[in-house]
Amino acid sequence: MPATLTDSDPTGLHRVLDDAVVLPQAARRLDTRREIWPDEVRVRVETLNLDAASFRQLEGAHTVDGRADGAAVRAEVLAIIAERGKMQNPVTGSGGMLIGTVEEVGPESPLGLAVGDHVATLVSLSLTPLVIEDGLERWDGRHERVPADGYAILFGRSIAATIPDDLDPELSLSVMDVCGAPALTARVVRQYDAPVVAVVGGAGKSGSLSLAAAKREGASRTIGVVPHEGEAALLRDAGLADEVVVADARDPIALRKAVTEAGGPADITVVCVDVPGCEGGAILATAERGTVIFFSMATSFSAAALGAEGVAADVTMLVGNGYTPGHATYAMELLRESDGVRSMFERRL
Amino acid sequence: MPATLTDSDPTGLHRVLDDAVVLPQAARRLDTRREIWPDEVRVRVETLNLDAASFRQLEGAHTVDGRADGAAVRAEVLAIIAERGKMQNPVTGSGGMLIGTVEEVGPESPLGLAVGDHVATLVSLSLTPLVIEDGLERWDGRHERVPADGYAILFGRSIAATIPDDLDPELSLSVMDVCGAPALTARVVRQYDAPVVAVVGGAGKSGSLSLAAAKREGASRTIGVVPHEGEAALLRDAGLADEVVVADARDPIALRKAVTEAGGPADITVVCVDVPGCEGGAILATAERGTVIFFSMATSFSAAALGAEGVAADVTMLVGNGYTPGHATYAMELLRESDGVRSMFERRL
Repeated sequence: MPATLTDSDPTGLHRVLDDAVVLPQAARRLDTRREIWPDEVRVRVETLNLDAASFRQLEGAHTVDGRADGAAVRAEVLAIIAERGKMQNPVTGSGGMLIGTVEEVGPESPLGLAVGDHVATLVSLSLTPLVIEDGLERWDGRHERVPADGYAILFGRSIAATIPDDLDPELSLSVMDVCGAPALTARVVRQYDAPVVAVVGGAGKSGSLSLAAAKREGASRTIGVVPHEGEAALLRDAGLADEVVVADARDPIALRKAVTEAGGPADITVVCVDVPGCEGGAILATAERGTVIFFSMATSFSAAALGAEGVAADVTMLVGNGYTPGHATYAMELLRESDGVRSMFERRL
Repeated sequence: MPATLTDSDPTGLHRVLDDAVVLPQAARRLDTRREIWPDEVRVRVETLNLDAASFRQLEGAHTVDGRADGAAVRAEVLAIIAERGKMQNPVTGSGGMLIGTVEEVGPESPLGLAVGDHVATLVSLSLTPLVIEDGLERWDGRHERVPADGYAILFGRSIAATIPDDLDPELSLSVMDVCGAPALTARVVRQYDAPVVAVVGGAGKSGSLSLAAAKREGASRTIGVVPHEGEAALLRDAGLADEVVVADARDPIALRKAVTEAGGPADITVVCVDVPGCEGGAILATAERGTVIFFSMATSFSAAALGAEGVAADVTMLVGNGYTPGHATYAMELLRESDGVRSMFERRL
């Protein structure tokens, strides 16, 4: 560590290059120097997992005549990382996570990691200093999972989980990527007495884990909402929901109708679909004094706040915090316990 | 009502002119026809109250050399209303509310209103069909409060409160405009045992009411955070907070330090300032297992979600729902009970 630098802050504030004092997540640019502060950890990167909303936006922005241009997506990701010192999509604000091997541990790091540990970072790429050293040459720009070589920095207050030896690392990463959703869903379900739980996007990664969590914590009925019959068949086969219904989540009236007919309205509605415009339907599908948990990064704060007010809906609306203590362990338990969860994840690998 | 039209929906869906099925709040354009459906109410408008975040954005967009151009602000508001059929700022997504007199009540309206009632609408202007008939000629474009002549439509599931005879209507409107904040703050305070409550923007309208609500519901300590010494003096004089501290809410480290030194971290942090970038500081100022309530329309969903995850903060984050049953009555009680609240509001008239 250069002796002239200021002390480090557990939030990573010391690596923010902006003029204003902002946290790394809100910063325009981060300091990506290799040398670590005493409470930091440096990780050798193997794989980036781009946030689904971010990847979808990038792919959409580089689609011509219905064909996505993978090379253009790759070039934009490289440009973002080079410019910002982190992988944060400027449109969605979101990042993703990474998998790698611990390369150096500062003497004051509180994370409990050792050199050589195989880890997944559970804080967003949107606040993680990152340098790419291979030009992402092994990535075709067509998948959220990005083989990469380079390094990343973890702060004192970061979170990283060791990847189990007995599972495919890609499977572990895929589960840990969304482990905040089942943990928070579980906490909210325990606050109700045998609630009806609807999960919008129930066949997705965070959705299927949230359905499993709801059932495990005592939901009286779980309803999985999916956009088309193909996903409905997958979710029915996995046995993760008591009811599976097909509806367009962006159509508030259709969503209200589908959930109501499946045994709703829901006491708890969990929004796991990464498309904009689902706020109104989620609110209308939820019972009075119910709770809506928004996990999608495509959620609009004002659409949620004003949407509920606009229909005089007495619902609690939660910003899906990606961190709940024990979230990675809890999600891995769901994976090991449930063949349905495992099948939903393995088919994506 | 023209006989060929579809039935009305209590959410106002029947007045959405967009091709996609969206709720009025999310719609591009609304149908502003004068004729009402059987469950609707038409109100003759006297005053619009623009949302603070919206007005600030409009004023900023029309400021040249440090001088706001009121005529340009007025022209833009007129253009928005004419184009969209509602007053919804395209940048902030927010609207405001209105005051007026009931002009016609449909035979199936459930709102309990009668022709001639003097009312404030408690649903956002961002979803209220609105026609301006006087060109806003009495407004100078320099204040959030807009004298206006025209009409607005309330749906079956709208909310309107009768304005008390014994209070200045502008005072009532000003209180009702932000009545969602104290009601939700009160509900959250009751879920804790004698919590420490910090209100960021404590000298503002929603902030001062939230401080009064927190104290009334059993907060052990209330901390008002304000941006400068002038507001601090006002808030101290009003006696609404146990501690008043000056801090820039956009500086997360400064906010954490100010709240901690005033007796925090807070069990509940209420964000009432209409400036972007306060998410990180609010999260850092809040204790583990605490709750952050975001009432500002300037809140970024992804900044909140990723900000909490990024610092491994186990906090519950609520989207400030503007509707809680009884919210207008509750806020008016706070106004009548507290000389401090009253003084904070009257100085703005």
